[in-house]
Amino acid sequence: MKINICQINTKAANINGNKEKINSILQSSGEDTLNIFGELSLTGSPLYNRNIYTDIYQQTSMAGDELCKSGKSFIVGTIAKSEDLLYNSLVFVDKGEVKALATKRNLGRFDRNYSIGNGIEVLKYEGKKIAFGFYEDVLNFAKRGIEVDTLILVHNNLFDKDYDNDIERELGNYARRLKANIVFVSRIGVEGNFVFQGGSFVLNRNGDIILRVSEFSEAVCDIDLSVLNKNIKPIQQCYEERIFNACVLGIRDYWAKSGIKKAVIGLSGGIDSAVVVVLAATALGKENVTGILMPSEFSSEHSINDAKQSADNLGIEHYVVPIQGIFSASKEALKELLSIEAKDTTEENLQARARCMIVMAFGNRLGAAMLNTSNKSESAVGYGTLYGDDSGALGPIGDLYKEDVYKLARWINRDKEIIPNNSITKAPSAELHPNQKDSDTLPEYDVLDKVLKEHIENHLSYKEIVDKGYDESIVKRTLHLYNINEWKRRQEAPALRLSKTCFATDIKINF
Amino acid sequence: MKINICQINTKAANINGNKEKINSILQSSGEDTLNIFGELSLTGSPLYNRNIYTDIYQQTSMAGDELCKSGKSFIVGTIAKSEDLLYNSLVFVDKGEVKALATKRNLGRFDRNYSIGNGIEVLKYEGKKIAFGFYEDVLNFAKRGIEVDTLILVHNNLFDKDYDNDIERELGNYARRLKANIVFVSRIGVEGNFVFQGGSFVLNRNGDIILRVSEFSEAVCDIDLSVLNKNIKPIQQCYEERIFNACVLGIRDYWAKSGIKKAVIGLSGGIDSAVVVVLAATALGKENVTGILMPSEFSSEHSINDAKQSADNLGIEHYVVPIQGIFSASKEALKELLSIEAKDTTEENLQARARCMIVMAFGNRLGAAMLNTSNKSESAVGYGTLYGDDSGALGPIGDLYKEDVYKLARWINRDKEIIPNNSITKAPSAELHPNQKDSDTLPEYDVLDKVLKEHIENHLSYKEIVDKGYDESIVKRTLHLYNINEWKRRQEAPALRLSKTCFATDIKINF
Repeated sequence: MKINICQINTKAANINGNKEKINSILQSSGEDTLNIFGELSLTGSPLYNRNIYTDIYQQTSMAGDELCKSGKSFIVGTIAKSEDLLYNSLVFVDKGEVKALATKRNLGRFDRNYSIGNGIEVLKYEGKKIAFGFYEDVLNFAKRGIEVDTLILVHNNLFDKDYDNDIERELGNYARRLKANIVFVSRIGVEGNFVFQGGSFVLNRNGDIILRVSEFSEAVCDIDLSVLNKNIKPIQQCYEERIFNACVLGIRDYWAKSGIKKAVIGLSGGIDSAVVVVLAATALGKENVTGILMPSEFSSEHSINDAKQSADNLGIEHYVVPIQGIFSASKEALKELLSIEAKDTTEENLQARARCMIVMAFGNRLGAAMLNTSNKSESAVGYGTLYGDDSGALGPIGDLYKEDVYKLARWINRDKEIIPNNSITKAPSAELHPNQKDSDTLPEYDVLDKVLKEHIENHLSYKEIVDKGYDESIVKRTLHLYNINEWKRRQEAPALRLSKTCFATDIKINF
Repeated sequence: MKINICQINTKAANINGNKEKINSILQSSGEDTLNIFGELSLTGSPLYNRNIYTDIYQQTSMAGDELCKSGKSFIVGTIAKSEDLLYNSLVFVDKGEVKALATKRNLGRFDRNYSIGNGIEVLKYEGKKIAFGFYEDVLNFAKRGIEVDTLILVHNNLFDKDYDNDIERELGNYARRLKANIVFVSRIGVEGNFVFQGGSFVLNRNGDIILRVSEFSEAVCDIDLSVLNKNIKPIQQCYEERIFNACVLGIRDYWAKSGIKKAVIGLSGGIDSAVVVVLAATALGKENVTGILMPSEFSSEHSINDAKQSADNLGIEHYVVPIQGIFSASKEALKELLSIEAKDTTEENLQARARCMIVMAFGNRLGAAMLNTSNKSESAVGYGTLYGDDSGALGPIGDLYKEDVYKLARWINRDKEIIPNNSITKAPSAELHPNQKDSDTLPEYDVLDKVLKEHIENHLSYKEIVDKGYDESIVKRTLHLYNINEWKRRQEAPALRLSKTCFATDIKINF
């Protein structure tokens, strides 16, 4: 049996665009090939509430009919309607004729408004018994004890930087238990801040991987299940490389799907903006990224030099716009208020907000979107200014702890100095008052990150973290800052989701 | 049977505080009274992910044990654990002894990490057969056909401005069908931007309402089910009054639970800020609200007067901080950029962001949180500046269409002029360039609101709305603006949730 794994990038609600992409693959495929497209490949996903709108359903139906006219064989993901109920469905088309429909049973986070379906379906195709449906329904299918030659599973597989081939291992067990080949097809691409990673694969009856499609890129892979049968090794991508690829895809696809070409970014000379600008230049091309240096009276000479170096190394356009004038004018306008004595961050926040004004003005006039440069450690403890440096259309490293940002920076520099070494080695500073360092108000990042991970990833409470040997006052202060800053996290730039604990999409606490 | 309906305001994760509140009610209740507290009344709700943390569970268990020491009879909502699974539970305590546990079966949006429970439980109490459990599980219970004297249901009932006593009607039907008294207990209060409305009630076997507790306020109501049996009329609150009460509770409780006393708000002289400042002064007291007038060269004389009048009518403190200096300094800093000719909103956004800088500076120095003044119509079409007037800790009218804001304003002014009449009658304007009116770029609000409602509330697509007789170009433009502004809605101030279609909590579309 010849199959064609179609790991494509669709766009949510862009049904005509998705149909064209699918159709062009069908046109070039052989008569005896089964083309497998992923979950909701015709409609795109997530549709949120859009699946209940009649125009979406009508367009989808018409597009499905058109695809059948190709006369080819394929599985495509779409919306099905029955007695006014909607189902997340896969249609099996054999030489232009609809043969079967699998409806999703175990609904997930993106399956709003869908009713519970029947799960995996079985049919005869090219003389073989085939099962097809959604990855989420595999357990229910296995329990039914039906013998099939091949099991085809689709899944809109979300990226997770800490993912460790667990789906491969799990389906390897099912392949052996069911004595069936398993074909797993995932989409790639980005919707909002969700990254779908691709990485489709094929397993034989022994659970050996016989094909593995790359992550983060579109791919159409022919395979003859009756011939190919050799075991292949996992693709060895290191931790940093996978994160880098996910971030680059994240920026590229977010910008592309928003119809925006250009990005603007404030360059401080620090490691965070230095990493994000590399990601942006890689994703969008150096000609589409503009860096803005916004020195103040508190900026050190080395910061300005590092920021310039960062832009020069990439060959991107950059502007220098000092904030002194706006800062002075705002202090003048607010002199009555500022005459009230207080130890607070009012003046620091004025500077951060002046910078946001400037970067957003560049965004407006150049038709560019602003990149946010916050990391997850800062976001967790509220170390940033809302409507200031917390701003931006997307935060590419917003789901990376500071330690991961360092790792990524060193990996980017593995062959040559792209990020100024000084940005990596110097002590982090917001430079909002003289000689400021992050560690004046925060624990050192290596400790802070560990405490945050114990609480956020491992769900340990205060006492359990302290019992592991961490300093009581640091744990107390860290958890306190985490708890009181939820209101900021609700409004900061959406972080690109790189893990199961992304603040923008997964972790909410009370506020 | 004597029962005590305890419609209280709890705080999420503040277990000791909630326990104290519950305990003080138990201490003053009679020996023969069953005190009914609501869903998760001991832990507070929503807990999001916090229910899996050991400290929360341990505190909850200890607090439950303490409550039992009162020797009183009560039903309280808490977390139960069994074989490492968590359940959203109600504990029935008879004179200090745990008699039964009901675990929630039909889980909802706030029930993350809970396992599916057994639903409504039945027991003997004071010689009567009693059933108790969660409102969501009433259908499963009714199907079992068990006869009971009284059915006690708890529910964390979310406010909906368009709610029309549908739960009362539904449970009235169940009361007749089951021939049982029904006691319905809801919490009140606000968590983040969720408003729980209260409005607990009691139905007799005929489905007649025999007690109705007020909305939006804490109340403890004794009732003897064997005596009281008269039918009472619904509380007649008009549409505007319910919205007003919900908004006032929203601000008051959000501020109280955040530990903040004061609010700052930019006063433009327009209707939106004029309404929000009335709500804030009512909620927090006039001494805790500071208005900031920020005129520019484009501000009309009447705007400044209306804004002043608005503050004076309420007797709140206000400051006048012209933005001219900051605006000029920012244009000076950006003169290279602004020399690029373009018809865009760069200069308008600079003004809105300068105002945000100022209000947030007042917030910082005065220890106050900023009120957002955007309405739902603006938010839907992106008519506002991100990191400018879209800012604020909470948007009290962010879930109200402009037409509803007008209704609310007229209701506030029903007896005397609190909101300057001129703010209500003049044409809306952002005053960001000379003689600007909202209707220069947007359809008139009465049309805009209708089109938005057809799309957002009634789920009609473009063609269906046009078929209803609306102007094609207006519908097209409105839906286009709605679709391209999702990225802004994701970052704007969270709107207080007043309906099922709140952007902050319920409606997401692709972006």
